[in-house]
Amino acid sequence: MSDTFVSLRNIRFLLYNVHDVETLVRYPRFEDHDRDTFDMVLDTAFRVARELLRPKLREMDQQPPEYVDGRVKVNPVVREFMAECGEGGWIGAAAPLDLGGQQLPQSIIAACVFTWAAANYSASVYPMLTAGAAHLIESFGSAELQEQYLPRMYAGKWQGTMALTEPQAGSSLADIVTAAEPTNEGYFKVRGQKIFISAGDHDGVDNVVHLMLAKIKGAPAGVKGISLFVVPRMRPEGKDLAFNDVNTAGVFHKLGYRGCPITHLSFGENEDCRAWLVGEPHKGLSYMFQMMNNARIEVGLGAAAIASAAYYASLAYAQERPQGRRLADKEPSQPQVPIIEHADVKRMLLLQRAIVEGAVSLLLQCGRYSDLVEVTEGEEKGRYSLLLDLLTPIAKSYPSEMGIISVSQGLQILGGYGYCDEFPLEQFYRDMRIHPIHEGTTGIQGIDLLGRKVVIKDGAAFTLFVKEVTETIRAASGVDSLRAYAERLEQATQILTRVTEQLVTLGRQGNRERFLADATLYLELFGIVAIAWQWLKQGVAALKALAGKVSQEEAAFYAGKHATMQFFFHYELPKSEGLSRRLLEADGFTVQATLATFSD
Amino acid sequence: MSDTFVSLRNIRFLLYNVHDVETLVRYPRFEDHDRDTFDMVLDTAFRVARELLRPKLREMDQQPPEYVDGRVKVNPVVREFMAECGEGGWIGAAAPLDLGGQQLPQSIIAACVFTWAAANYSASVYPMLTAGAAHLIESFGSAELQEQYLPRMYAGKWQGTMALTEPQAGSSLADIVTAAEPTNEGYFKVRGQKIFISAGDHDGVDNVVHLMLAKIKGAPAGVKGISLFVVPRMRPEGKDLAFNDVNTAGVFHKLGYRGCPITHLSFGENEDCRAWLVGEPHKGLSYMFQMMNNARIEVGLGAAAIASAAYYASLAYAQERPQGRRLADKEPSQPQVPIIEHADVKRMLLLQRAIVEGAVSLLLQCGRYSDLVEVTEGEEKGRYSLLLDLLTPIAKSYPSEMGIISVSQGLQILGGYGYCDEFPLEQFYRDMRIHPIHEGTTGIQGIDLLGRKVVIKDGAAFTLFVKEVTETIRAASGVDSLRAYAERLEQATQILTRVTEQLVTLGRQGNRERFLADATLYLELFGIVAIAWQWLKQGVAALKALAGKVSQEEAAFYAGKHATMQFFFHYELPKSEGLSRRLLEADGFTVQATLATFSD
Repeated sequence: MSDTFVSLRNIRFLLYNVHDVETLVRYPRFEDHDRDTFDMVLDTAFRVARELLRPKLREMDQQPPEYVDGRVKVNPVVREFMAECGEGGWIGAAAPLDLGGQQLPQSIIAACVFTWAAANYSASVYPMLTAGAAHLIESFGSAELQEQYLPRMYAGKWQGTMALTEPQAGSSLADIVTAAEPTNEGYFKVRGQKIFISAGDHDGVDNVVHLMLAKIKGAPAGVKGISLFVVPRMRPEGKDLAFNDVNTAGVFHKLGYRGCPITHLSFGENEDCRAWLVGEPHKGLSYMFQMMNNARIEVGLGAAAIASAAYYASLAYAQERPQGRRLADKEPSQPQVPIIEHADVKRMLLLQRAIVEGAVSLLLQCGRYSDLVEVTEGEEKGRYSLLLDLLTPIAKSYPSEMGIISVSQGLQILGGYGYCDEFPLEQFYRDMRIHPIHEGTTGIQGIDLLGRKVVIKDGAAFTLFVKEVTETIRAASGVDSLRAYAERLEQATQILTRVTEQLVTLGRQGNRERFLADATLYLELFGIVAIAWQWLKQGVAALKALAGKVSQEEAAFYAGKHATMQFFFHYELPKSEGLSRRLLEADGFTVQATLATFSD
Repeated sequence: MSDTFVSLRNIRFLLYNVHDVETLVRYPRFEDHDRDTFDMVLDTAFRVARELLRPKLREMDQQPPEYVDGRVKVNPVVREFMAECGEGGWIGAAAPLDLGGQQLPQSIIAACVFTWAAANYSASVYPMLTAGAAHLIESFGSAELQEQYLPRMYAGKWQGTMALTEPQAGSSLADIVTAAEPTNEGYFKVRGQKIFISAGDHDGVDNVVHLMLAKIKGAPAGVKGISLFVVPRMRPEGKDLAFNDVNTAGVFHKLGYRGCPITHLSFGENEDCRAWLVGEPHKGLSYMFQMMNNARIEVGLGAAAIASAAYYASLAYAQERPQGRRLADKEPSQPQVPIIEHADVKRMLLLQRAIVEGAVSLLLQCGRYSDLVEVTEGEEKGRYSLLLDLLTPIAKSYPSEMGIISVSQGLQILGGYGYCDEFPLEQFYRDMRIHPIHEGTTGIQGIDLLGRKVVIKDGAAFTLFVKEVTETIRAASGVDSLRAYAERLEQATQILTRVTEQLVTLGRQGNRERFLADATLYLELFGIVAIAWQWLKQGVAALKALAGKVSQEEAAFYAGKHATMQFFFHYELPKSEGLSRRLLEADGFTVQATLATFSD
């Protein structure tokens, strides 16, 4: 069985042909790079993925982290990988040169993260979290905090985490109770419990640094009283490290994503847990949103990546496994055909490819917007920022939700073998299921999209989105074999606009619950339109490339792109009809449903 | 956390109010029964489910069957349960009195199977398989085979299996190679390999009896050369049992459904495996279809049952777990509300309820048709038989496919906890995934529905189906609060009819691959319409019941039924629009897609 988990050709096509990443090097921030350095980075990431991460995929699943004597033991490859990430400059890849970073574009980093996550999702989380936590300190931490923490986090010696969730609050951050008490020594003393903290403790690093939300005593109620702190497990004291009263109460036993421990942490059991404020008091949630938004994109990347690995595993199986005959020719004396020749198997493969490559394209689109936010100013920066904000919940949720469907189709192709652990599909199926949950559930993403992103600045972000889509439609309308698809996307965008206007009007009338009742379905509808847009973009780029001088192999790749685009428009885009039908009813059905509805 | 896994009230509502099971006792076959005996049977099944099966749900998952020294060890509860099934007459429940059975209607048995599977799906499979295998012997076996095998199978002392799948053939039964050679002793000698055989060997019984497909030497190629045999693991020799050269090569390690071993069996390694022909040579597949069709209904029941257990587990959590506040009132100084008050959580619960109770209703509808086939004659019998044949692939696939969505929504309601094994959702998620695979994949069900069931007798079964739906529409049209839904169902049925006519015309033109290219989507569309029909039926029955004298509690139940029916029509039926849009294109897109499409 083939061991393919990503297509580098596809990644390069998306980066260079679709999203013009090369043009970024015109900006001073990225002027030290060029396509060669980007390619070198991608190749190195792929090598690490193939040689270090993929071989441990199954082992890390079957021998999950152990909780022993209050500490968490992980697979030795974690230490090896974190060291590799440190030496290779991966953790500080996005950070500015003057802080010791590599100043690489997010688009390129996203492609690398995707590659790692496709090889071994659990492993990929350790450096990603560390990079996100370090980025928070870079952006909002004092010079002293930066000096103390960044070098060792960039070096992969200290793990970073985001410590938000508490047992009594779950998704409702307004209700966290972890308390921080000021002292005269420049630090706070904290006490509280955090749960579901990924990589919250493990022996693959020398220390763990929690970027933690807590409330300073006397702070305002709700989210307006949340502050952000750095809380190390071991605190630097001179040249030494001292235990900072951060205790690991246990690890959760999970369906999948087993290579990374999700911990229950207890802070300040012995009144000796010190925390250092990041930025100003009570502004913690807005800071944390920086890390959270990045983390949401990374969840999308992780989900698309697992779906990519599942796609290639099922493709290889379908090409090798003989079973049955074509429906047109069922003569039993003839040999069986590989199952990829059955139309329904091709449908399942095309569905996977359409989801995976549509999702990655949207994620790299977000990477591009993120890079443009970094390098532009004023109104232009504002525009990219709005687009990124708008698309983040979709880039998180579409791969997470549709990735489940995608992996499930991959498993289905293997039939009974897909259900057994001889093949990796069943692990991918388990690993995938975390994504609609962590970093904000799909329900929360829907409310974020419709209740916040769509309405900010009087709908400015939505208007910009439609403009971007319209540009792609215009480009495609000039090409014969794309025109029909451009029209379909135009219609779908019009329907999305109509739904949006109707819902926003409802919201303006003050009925917030009814306005947001079907926000999850709105998110689904928006996701389908956004992915159709990305496919049309890919269609345009593929035909443009085909018009040049290409090898036979490249021609097949571009033809496959075109076919997968067609597939998405024929099989997936029509789902927007039923969704918009429902959304236009906007009757607040579920708001009105009483609890008695569930009596039996 | 509540331990509810089914609603007996709902089962009774479906049996008595919706499907008029009481009227069956008018027929001589069921005249010894009445509602009291039916209720007693249901209550007993529920007691067994609650007291014996449910307590072992988790243990059987966490300590799956072990393969030791060529044999399979299962949880001791299997022996206890099989004995209970024997003593209680469960395995022969449907069999005629004169063969030692109970002559109970399939509708009642289906409700019991549903209850057991909801408590512990893996456990429920052992007696179901035994009953199915025994039924084959009852129907087609010689008097000698009946005498030798039935008493001990009914007693739960001998396990029955269906042994079809082979490594090189998978779903393609035409390609099985297990060979049977006639002898002069009245038996055949067989040699071959079978894989994925559920309960193919275990120590919870004294013997295992395989109902096996094999080819007699010199038989015609393909499915026309398949014969059916009884192949016991230990063969009766006088009063003793002798080893029959049936070896267990191993068990598969599975994602879920872990309480039941799926075995790899090797027959005749030492040329001493005897097999007894059932019925005539080369007609084995048609006999086996009896067991397979029953087994498909049972897979549907199992899927709906797991989804039922998941629904109640997530409902209990949603009622107990406080988190966040209503969107209309986010004042953080107010206490948090139980998450069931959030519209999106209600949506997820209603979706689960709509899927579970819609699916069970369709399955009991099939049970009713099955009973009517048994008690009627001539043209009437033919009608019910056609309806049952038509609906079987839907009754298998809708619960299997939508059950995955349903359980996933249940898991989602629990958030991070849903992903952890402290709660049963993650097990249900794993257990559920087998159902679109075993007893014929969803792809095969789609081809069976469109390529066989819809077209037999010039579309007679489809016409009968539309007639049944139209009757329900007529009944609902007379009720104010149902009229709008009757109209929606009428439109959906018209669309389904148009799609069907167009596809069948395509098939008549001889392009079989294009005709069946989207059979899986056709199955999905048909499933949605069939479930909408069942919900409208439930709506009619609920309002009829409400019009009588009912307690407050009963009124709440019927109101909940009405609300769930509305939900299905508002949220699920619209999916038929996108599906029919795609199906009407009927362009054979996936047939034409070349293998180069997948190059990268």
